[in-house]
Amino acid sequence: MFRVNDNFCKLPSAYLFSQVAEKVRGYIEAHPGVEVIRMGIGDVTRPICDAAVQAMHEAVDDEADAARFHGYGPEQGYEFLRAAIAENDYRARGVEISESEIFIGDGAKSDTGKIGDILWPGSRVAVTDPVYPVYVDTNVMGGRGGDLCTDGYWSGIEYLRCDFDNGFVPSLPMGQPDVIYLCYPNNPTGTVLTRAQLAEWVDYARHNGSLILFDAAYEAYITQDDVPHSIYEIDGAREVAIEFRSFSKTAGFTGLRCGYTVVPKELKGHDGAGREVSLNALWNRRQSTKFNGASYIVQRGAAAIYTDAGKEQVRTTIDYYLRNAGLLYDGVRNAGLEAVGGKNSPYVWLRTPDGMTSWEFFDRLLDRCHVVGTPGIGFGPAGEGCFRLTGFNTYENTQKAIERLGKL
Amino acid sequence: MFRVNDNFCKLPSAYLFSQVAEKVRGYIEAHPGVEVIRMGIGDVTRPICDAAVQAMHEAVDDEADAARFHGYGPEQGYEFLRAAIAENDYRARGVEISESEIFIGDGAKSDTGKIGDILWPGSRVAVTDPVYPVYVDTNVMGGRGGDLCTDGYWSGIEYLRCDFDNGFVPSLPMGQPDVIYLCYPNNPTGTVLTRAQLAEWVDYARHNGSLILFDAAYEAYITQDDVPHSIYEIDGAREVAIEFRSFSKTAGFTGLRCGYTVVPKELKGHDGAGREVSLNALWNRRQSTKFNGASYIVQRGAAAIYTDAGKEQVRTTIDYYLRNAGLLYDGVRNAGLEAVGGKNSPYVWLRTPDGMTSWEFFDRLLDRCHVVGTPGIGFGPAGEGCFRLTGFNTYENTQKAIERLGKL
Repeated sequence: MFRVNDNFCKLPSAYLFSQVAEKVRGYIEAHPGVEVIRMGIGDVTRPICDAAVQAMHEAVDDEADAARFHGYGPEQGYEFLRAAIAENDYRARGVEISESEIFIGDGAKSDTGKIGDILWPGSRVAVTDPVYPVYVDTNVMGGRGGDLCTDGYWSGIEYLRCDFDNGFVPSLPMGQPDVIYLCYPNNPTGTVLTRAQLAEWVDYARHNGSLILFDAAYEAYITQDDVPHSIYEIDGAREVAIEFRSFSKTAGFTGLRCGYTVVPKELKGHDGAGREVSLNALWNRRQSTKFNGASYIVQRGAAAIYTDAGKEQVRTTIDYYLRNAGLLYDGVRNAGLEAVGGKNSPYVWLRTPDGMTSWEFFDRLLDRCHVVGTPGIGFGPAGEGCFRLTGFNTYENTQKAIERLGKL
Repeated sequence: MFRVNDNFCKLPSAYLFSQVAEKVRGYIEAHPGVEVIRMGIGDVTRPICDAAVQAMHEAVDDEADAARFHGYGPEQGYEFLRAAIAENDYRARGVEISESEIFIGDGAKSDTGKIGDILWPGSRVAVTDPVYPVYVDTNVMGGRGGDLCTDGYWSGIEYLRCDFDNGFVPSLPMGQPDVIYLCYPNNPTGTVLTRAQLAEWVDYARHNGSLILFDAAYEAYITQDDVPHSIYEIDGAREVAIEFRSFSKTAGFTGLRCGYTVVPKELKGHDGAGREVSLNALWNRRQSTKFNGASYIVQRGAAAIYTDAGKEQVRTTIDYYLRNAGLLYDGVRNAGLEAVGGKNSPYVWLRTPDGMTSWEFFDRLLDRCHVVGTPGIGFGPAGEGCFRLTGFNTYENTQKAIERLGKL
């Protein structure tokens, strides 16, 4: 009988958000009529902005007309979208990224998972702790995890602790990792790195020969001036970093599926013989062989958020979520809990009261307040005793959740 | 400096269809005003059917309305689409496939590429020759290719020759492969396997413990009664086969991006310790961790092709392409060339005249007839001296191409 990739078998059976969803389903079935407020999974709730909606209607009409029909598009994404990104997300911030360095994909989760295809299976990986579980799980699948230890850590991965004690600023790695995942504004903690702090990482990567995988999915939520929107705002980053962006949190595209990945031309790794290899060329090859482009309709929608009207509409929605996140942060603090985030991020990360575990707090919050959050332990061992709430619900529900929390 | 997956470096630099596109671009630039008829890449040209267009407009409106907004969908695809597939593509043909065995993806190219994630990196692979290049290239990327030999074959892959001499019926493998790729109706040759012929492969896989990856992307083009639409029409196939389907060729979704993969519950591989592992569970884990579902809008469009109106509209388009393919086949035969396909497939596969190589014939066809086809050599060494034409252009252009071919 043929053999499977049994690295998969090392993974604990369920993915965090599926586990949360299952618990909530069970609770609602057992308590019909209860109004549950969901602040768990980082999914948006506001509708797609009008500019993108109109653009997608037009794109659907294109597909209905033989003369305007769009079949296979470029695997790298349409020029109209890549150009809008280069201009608005980069050039407007003083960063020069060429269109051929931008690859449109079906979302940052997909791309941060797939990027492992072009990396050596034996690469040593470092992640912050807590961490977005996809980085860890996809590396375990790719054979880079080592073994799962009883303390919840994978033996092959270096964890860089971020907690209330170190102000959520991870120390530089000790183990000379080949690949370092950084996500800022951070999921799950909602914390950020300043320009000076991120520059230390770029310097480290340049000296150590590491690759930084920089996940900037929450970039649109940044409100502080000294927080970089792109890692390429840092000198030298083009030689060491791949950046992932998403339209999911920026423009509510979680159900539409679009994001992009930037792979600068200067970024080089080496092959087994020590020869330099362009990562832009490898990723281009990966995408042309194993991907057929994001949906034309959705790319048209994404391009529309860069119009004047689109920018304004998207900004309104992000401000709405940020107001919620601020409200949550204040509410949690007023309830006497220690917390971070909520300022440059839709996420608030809190320390559970009375030394409760994350899942104990999850159960209590669901049972007493009918509020769903995400247990910190789901993001790694350093998340134990912590909990994530999101500003993605409505303003009214956020207020309600805060009231209920106050009574806890 | 960090190391890349240097299996990528073994691949010749360009992907077949990019190479073709580049040659055509060059020719047009050098010969402005020339009317080139494209019958190379297998892309459709007819617009999306009205039922799907209406459904997508409604889905766009859903996304514009907070009450009907759809954010993250199930990674496995929406129930409404999985149910329509189970009912129409399987139950209606007497095949029982449950919804939890169906995984909606962004296309068959993506899924046939990604499936390698759940297979052992050391798996021995067999492909027919000629073959859709994605099967070979993705296995090379995954470390299963061995080395590229001077004859164009990869040392780690077993090639099963299909040519005019054996009537395009591949012999069973000699090398006990773990994984066998079969694509029927075949891309590139347009040939088929009858139910009895496919049953031999299922029996072989059962006895040898092999996995069959069955690509049925062109299923909708089948016109003969004794040709199976699904491998699951064969007894025992649920224990040995994964089936890939696409809405690209069925309903013109090449630019919209939607397909699906069927992984039956009975299908088991083994881990390093010899324990049985469910492939359905592995693929589910892969998709929930590295994918976030296909676009909601596109899934709504796909579901609409299973309505009565949708079925009729889709049928009309496929009949249109089949008429073109039949015309092409007759035209090529009348021009004195040997050919197959064009009957259960949009593809016609011909032997080049006068012992020309595939690329020589490509150049001559482009230069003298201004018709673009695909050189057979691009599909593997057995494709040398062969050429693929597609019925995906308009009827008028197909007629024109045939006229020009007649004068060659």
